[in-house]
Amino acid sequence: MNPKVWSSFITDLDQQVFDAAGYGKTMGTGTRPALFIIDVHYNFVGDAPEPILESVKKYRTSCGERGWSSVEHIQRLLGAARSKNLPVVYTVSERRKDYLDSGVQRLKSYRHMEPTSVAGSKGSQVVAEVAPETQDILISKRKPSAFFGTPLMSYMNDLDVDTIILTGTTTSGCIRATAVDAFSYNFKTVIHEECCFDRFDSSHAINLFDLNTKYADVVPLKSVMEYVNGLPGREEGRWVAAP
Amino acid sequence: MNPKVWSSFITDLDQQVFDAAGYGKTMGTGTRPALFIIDVHYNFVGDAPEPILESVKKYRTSCGERGWSSVEHIQRLLGAARSKNLPVVYTVSERRKDYLDSGVQRLKSYRHMEPTSVAGSKGSQVVAEVAPETQDILISKRKPSAFFGTPLMSYMNDLDVDTIILTGTTTSGCIRATAVDAFSYNFKTVIHEECCFDRFDSSHAINLFDLNTKYADVVPLKSVMEYVNGLPGREEGRWVAAP
Amino acid sequence: MNPKVWSSFITDLDQQVFDAAGYGKTMGTGTRPALFIIDVHYNFVGDAPEPILESVKKYRTSCGERGWSSVEHIQRLLGAARSKNLPVVYTVSERRKDYLDSGVQRLKSYRHMEPTSVAGSKGSQVVAEVAPETQDILISKRKPSAFFGTPLMSYMNDLDVDTIILTGTTTSGCIRATAVDAFSYNFKTVIHEECCFDRFDSSHAINLFDLNTKYADVVPLKSVMEYVNGLPGREEGRWVAAP
Amino acid sequence: MNPKVWSSFITDLDQQVFDAAGYGKTMGTGTRPALFIIDVHYNFVGDAPEPILESVKKYRTSCGERGWSSVEHIQRLLGAARSKNLPVVYTVSERRKDYLDSGVQRLKSYRHMEPTSVAGSKGSQVVAEVAPETQDILISKRKPSAFFGTPLMSYMNDLDVDTIILTGTTTSGCIRATAVDAFSYNFKTVIHEECCFDRFDSSHAINLFDLNTKYADVVPLKSVMEYVNGLPGREEGRWVAAP
Repeated sequence: MNPKVWSSFITDLDQQVFDAAGYGKTMGTGTRPALFIIDVHYNFVGDAPEPILESVKKYRTSCGERGWSSVEHIQRLLGAARSKNLPVVYTVSERRKDYLDSGVQRLKSYRHMEPTSVAGSKGSQVVAEVAPETQDILISKRKPSAFFGTPLMSYMNDLDVDTIILTGTTTSGCIRATAVDAFSYNFKTVIHEECCFDRFDSSHAINLFDLNTKYADVVPLKSVMEYVNGLPGREEGRWVAAP
Repeated sequence: MNPKVWSSFITDLDQQVFDAAGYGKTMGTGTRPALFIIDVHYNFVGDAPEPILESVKKYRTSCGERGWSSVEHIQRLLGAARSKNLPVVYTVSERRKDYLDSGVQRLKSYRHMEPTSVAGSKGSQVVAEVAPETQDILISKRKPSAFFGTPLMSYMNDLDVDTIILTGTTTSGCIRATAVDAFSYNFKTVIHEECCFDRFDSSHAINLFDLNTKYADVVPLKSVMEYVNGLPGREEGRWVAAP
Repeated sequence: MNPKVWSSFITDLDQQVFDAAGYGKTMGTGTRPALFIIDVHYNFVGDAPEPILESVKKYRTSCGERGWSSVEHIQRLLGAARSKNLPVVYTVSERRKDYLDSGVQRLKSYRHMEPTSVAGSKGSQVVAEVAPETQDILISKRKPSAFFGTPLMSYMNDLDVDTIILTGTTTSGCIRATAVDAFSYNFKTVIHEECCFDRFDSSHAINLFDLNTKYADVVPLKSVMEYVNGLPGREEGRWVAAP
Repeated sequence: MNPKVWSSFITDLDQQVFDAAGYGKTMGTGTRPALFIIDVHYNFVGDAPEPILESVKKYRTSCGERGWSSVEHIQRLLGAARSKNLPVVYTVSERRKDYLDSGVQRLKSYRHMEPTSVAGSKGSQVVAEVAPETQDILISKRKPSAFFGTPLMSYMNDLDVDTIILTGTTTSGCIRATAVDAFSYNFKTVIHEECCFDRFDSSHAINLFDLNTKYADVVPLKSVMEYVNGLPGREEGRWVAAP
């Protein structure tokens, strides 16, 4: 964060406008966070760390080795979250074999009909390093935002969540869309730049700039870890309301 | 568009990944479009064309003279849309005096409580050059997307819309959020880069890059005008279903 | 509630099935309630207490004198809620002059185009006895549920609400739809049968039966008052998050 | 429909108010319908036609033999819809083993934790007589409405649907909630009283009364069949947009 990932992508005038217009204040965190792990499955990182141009040959959506680098950071954060019994929400982007559920998305990619996104394939499985456990919330989604067309908002109420620690991929896709919906629902959102990743360096940088400017706090991993470690810890069994 | 607005902002590797991964195919248009004019009010452009650093002094959200430049293009497009009797949807971002309806947005700006966004103030009025008419749809929204927390999706069904011509501001804010929701609802979306604007050059460029890569078609104004001019024209009175 | 309002409307077999299938357990309440006052405006009760058949002559949607009877109960509950500084949410159902915003609703009534629902008319004003105050949340809606196409869910998060005390009209219309959405969002909902009203006796009774069976707790006014009076009271100024 | 199913449940005054207030006009149908089959799985009808009090012993949510009677009618309608290649949408209500996804629903039933609703169990399978085929849309939902927290609205746009033929169960639960959301999204909805069913006779009757009064057309099966048989038929392969 020093210098920030977006520093080399924004113009001098952009920085001056940012300062003059009063953007980028810290939103802060609440007391009842959940950890979100968005679309960290094999077709977004590849089977193993490889240069992205190599990795996209097999998985058209892959971000390559930068994805695997993030997985390590997410793993650390996941460990901290589990130690406090925080709710953990996973999403996967998976499709029917005929891609009917892709809708207009089919129209924007020359490679959309490749089978790497089909439900049940390896590509649509969360990587083993941060695999979900039985008690976690696993959302199968069809659109960028984890909230769009899913029961996620209902889970947030049931689990009494007020803050989202947002990790995963892609920064310019599902992270961005989820963060904007979280903002629109009035959640506080924290993002660490090493815990999310994208296939495009420029999109990664500028989407983090946009999110930090208006919608979420982009902070050092150290800050996120201190926040989680400082929480009192959620009671065992609290996840399921008493019948 | 030749060269594209984002060309100088993306890296060489980004362009190679874009090509290899098959992104950026043209989505195409349907036969029943609506024109969206997002948040083109005074506090996003200023009272008159001025350099942005001057304009933000009065209106913290202003994009300055680049906004006024877009207004001219939008005006032309609006004329074409009206000649075909297309549905026109306007949004305005306006707030209560106590900014209760801003929610967590209050927390991200040092200048958020300035009165320029209060409903009824000049800042929250659509600029006279493209002002709404009685039959248009005027949505008062509180969050970036024109769809979020508004009856817009219901209007789209009632008016039988399948395509959105998206104009207004900001490219990285309400345009981006509206385009992602339009994509998620499976609308086809067309954007012309001169008909939307932002306060940050880098965000404007990269958000157009992201949208064109995955969610919408970013096309020359000529293409949009040809599309609208080639439509058969919507019947007078068709907007309101017969009682 | 003794006997319950629906007792004479359900069959003996219905009661046996209800008992055998295990329905109607008490959901209970949380600690952070809001009071909802749904559509209590003049066109749902008439200008003054009159027999319903008289009242519908002027206002097609009126519930007549039974509405005014509920207003008295709601007024008492509102007083209790205000003494604890609870968030109060009002909705109004109002329309454009051309009723474009009614959508398919236009098609279901022979009297839909009458001007009593037009925004700004007396019919669309909340009755003076329970009129909203400046700090309250006033939602202008187009569809039955207070949540549908409105920013209400975002307000609920910002105000940290977990329980809804639901009052107003009609039981079979906007109360029912709001209660089902509240249930779907995982709020706890409390309804007192005298604090909501309908134009149809049978619909009033059976909708309360349905709601109590599956979605909310229908309880005596005494219970609601005890619940509110037993709350610690919400801090002044807590409604608006600190900037 | 002659006399209507609700005739013996509504009061004389209710009928007079209905007439005076102008309710119950026919909404009509569009040209691009989809058939919805809501929650017709074993735990809503039982393994075989049995009296409801017998059937609820095993499946707490069962409607018993009246459900099986509806299945026959739905089967006929499904055949007609398939012959015209109409989109067919199925929903199932299924739960995790720990019922975390039930949210506050857990609190309203003394028998909620019984395993008959768990995903993968026989109870959560659509009955063989009207089983879904590969090309159909199968929605797994957690809340009453087929639209709530699901991608259904996106499918409706992609398939260009303007009318919903609504069948299944329960009339007072998922049918009611889906119909109200369909109305709110401005779809035209047609319901035949024999093609939906409920565990409570009174709720079945009054919910159909409410729906026909305000939100949908409750019509004879003959009318629905004539409507479907009179359609031109949807092209093969039209369901999936060309890539």
